[in-house]
Amino acid sequence: MPDRVPIYLDYNATTPVDPRVLQAMLPYFSEVYGNPANGLHRQGRLAARAVDEARERVADLIGAQPHEIVFTAGATESNNLVIDGLTRRADSGLPTSPRRRIVTTAVEHKAVLEPCRRLGREGWDVVVLPVDRDGVVDVAEAAEAIDDNTLLVSIQAANNEVGTIQPVAAIAALAHAHGVLVHCDAAQAVGKVAVNVTALDVDLLSASGHKLYGPKGIGLLYVRGGPRRLPLQPASLGGGQEAGLRPGTSNVPGIVGFGQACALAQVALPEEGARLAGLRDQLEELLVNHVLKLAINGRAAPRLPNTSSAIFPNTDADALLLNLPDLMLGTGSACTSGAVEPSHVLQAMGVSREAAFGTVRVSLGRYTQPDDVVTAVALMREAWLAVREGY
Amino acid sequence: MPDRVPIYLDYNATTPVDPRVLQAMLPYFSEVYGNPANGLHRQGRLAARAVDEARERVADLIGAQPHEIVFTAGATESNNLVIDGLTRRADSGLPTSPRRRIVTTAVEHKAVLEPCRRLGREGWDVVVLPVDRDGVVDVAEAAEAIDDNTLLVSIQAANNEVGTIQPVAAIAALAHAHGVLVHCDAAQAVGKVAVNVTALDVDLLSASGHKLYGPKGIGLLYVRGGPRRLPLQPASLGGGQEAGLRPGTSNVPGIVGFGQACALAQVALPEEGARLAGLRDQLEELLVNHVLKLAINGRAAPRLPNTSSAIFPNTDADALLLNLPDLMLGTGSACTSGAVEPSHVLQAMGVSREAAFGTVRVSLGRYTQPDDVVTAVALMREAWLAVREGY
Repeated sequence: MPDRVPIYLDYNATTPVDPRVLQAMLPYFSEVYGNPANGLHRQGRLAARAVDEARERVADLIGAQPHEIVFTAGATESNNLVIDGLTRRADSGLPTSPRRRIVTTAVEHKAVLEPCRRLGREGWDVVVLPVDRDGVVDVAEAAEAIDDNTLLVSIQAANNEVGTIQPVAAIAALAHAHGVLVHCDAAQAVGKVAVNVTALDVDLLSASGHKLYGPKGIGLLYVRGGPRRLPLQPASLGGGQEAGLRPGTSNVPGIVGFGQACALAQVALPEEGARLAGLRDQLEELLVNHVLKLAINGRAAPRLPNTSSAIFPNTDADALLLNLPDLMLGTGSACTSGAVEPSHVLQAMGVSREAAFGTVRVSLGRYTQPDDVVTAVALMREAWLAVREGY
Repeated sequence: MPDRVPIYLDYNATTPVDPRVLQAMLPYFSEVYGNPANGLHRQGRLAARAVDEARERVADLIGAQPHEIVFTAGATESNNLVIDGLTRRADSGLPTSPRRRIVTTAVEHKAVLEPCRRLGREGWDVVVLPVDRDGVVDVAEAAEAIDDNTLLVSIQAANNEVGTIQPVAAIAALAHAHGVLVHCDAAQAVGKVAVNVTALDVDLLSASGHKLYGPKGIGLLYVRGGPRRLPLQPASLGGGQEAGLRPGTSNVPGIVGFGQACALAQVALPEEGARLAGLRDQLEELLVNHVLKLAINGRAAPRLPNTSSAIFPNTDADALLLNLPDLMLGTGSACTSGAVEPSHVLQAMGVSREAAFGTVRVSLGRYTQPDDVVTAVALMREAWLAVREGY
């Protein structure tokens, strides 16, 4: 049997850097290597110009202005910067809002949920909105939770595990009626579907370069009107970069790569979305036909075009993956503090522990071909039969 | 006149990525692109292995153990992580040390001074130690300031502007006698001189990849005994990476590049230090001989081998640099909140405002050749004569 090249279907975890992105980055390692803060010489100015250009490209993709983009190390940092930056040391006597409620959802990434939980332990009133069977936040529930004492609503654009797209604009309208700031963790949406800060009507938005074929270690925080327009306290202080909100020598190659990735995504978006949705639908049809009683999580909701979360009945997904060395997939569980726990997202959707442990996440991407989908289903069926037999 | 290739003598601001570092990074963009958190498949495991190996190389350079290294986006983040992480929300009721004093020095980078100042505004007792004419912190002054109420001493290994090397080990001994934690911002020292966490006797240490021919956007925080051994609160919460102290998808290519840069520095260190010190001494001798009444800041102190801070008498350094398009240098002033101010380091050393505005920083590096030094002095002399005439 010839060696098979393993098929990567874990694009929601991270993506390979597009070769065109790497090409754009290359001159900024050893040729144009200046520190953009050093405007007094050529190296510094060339680096600053590259950062400016990238900032425009990144802003363009989400319908923002360049001065509204703060470069961070990634969406985790951006999310924390919002939640901590708006609430920082409210007990210290610094002028802050008297509002003490934070509203978020049960299906957020841990980089939103954990800082919210920390605030809860520190005395903040944190409301975690439930979701329905398909992972969608109920707008009526949100309407009830968001009040004049609410400082911030943080809601994701799309879920990383199931792909469910949230009614962000509807919830933003509710929030704004109470003068509440709206943050959107769009790490899984930017580059996969159209994301426009005006259409979403959000004040703050997070994204990561490595989810859209850009480099790891770079991300953005969008701040409506620019970072000085909101009472955001920086996490770090230092050399004043990024309008003082995120100091430290700018990661020029990372920023340039992120800019290029955004420019490529903007061109590719509508067609690529349709292509991936077609492959995803084919994948799900094949899976349902070949694996007895297989169920798809979130199938009734608006979803990302590339994500499929499938419950293999009476199966341990980890065991399934061990029998699939030629497929790279995600699962519905995670190792938390040493113990394997079913995903909090699936639990919030009412998926049983057993079903969550049997859940496999397939996320397609730019290099996924129709053959890959057919092969993947064949391999999954084979592994499922093997694992199930041994059950 | 033929075009001259501009000479870069601003290595303390940032360094070009060594081509061997870039070579080591390249496979980790588009070939081994996995998320190290995804141990269930090959891409994730290969990425995790690369991170492990880089962690060993980075640890080796500073005489640490791999589990004592936390990867951050750079020294600015590391410094803030220490100062904020040890003091975070002391008012919130969480168990924290009753110690309320922080001791630092007047010549620290802003990424140390600014978070300390913020703590001062929040009620902490922040003591900023003065330095002598050469920029050296007085150990006797430190002994007086460090008491049983002191939580942390933060002292740099070497100064970015003048190159002065601080008596870190002596101050660490004083601090430890009072049970005080010692942090060292070693961003300018690592890779330029031998830095060993045991010899320095520090509990925490910060460094950046881009100061030693590694990539921008990656740095380290050394934590003696590992991050769980100290009561450090993370700035960000999320996926649990870096022992929970610094979550977010690992910047694999950046980490690999940092590892390679550290391995190269370790091999090159003793010889390269001697080579640069020789070039620096030659530079200073030529400057003193060719520029009337030129003075060198910090010349009497132990210094980094690559750094020279020169006062051009009756000269505006910015004007000098405008006349030096073929030289890339730093100055003794910085634009802070829109106004140009003399450097706080030079001010702390007792250098007059006028002299600080006439100060040029020359920092040599791996690609500096003897010819560059001769050319640089000739160009500086020429520009100085032109600028001085117009004075």
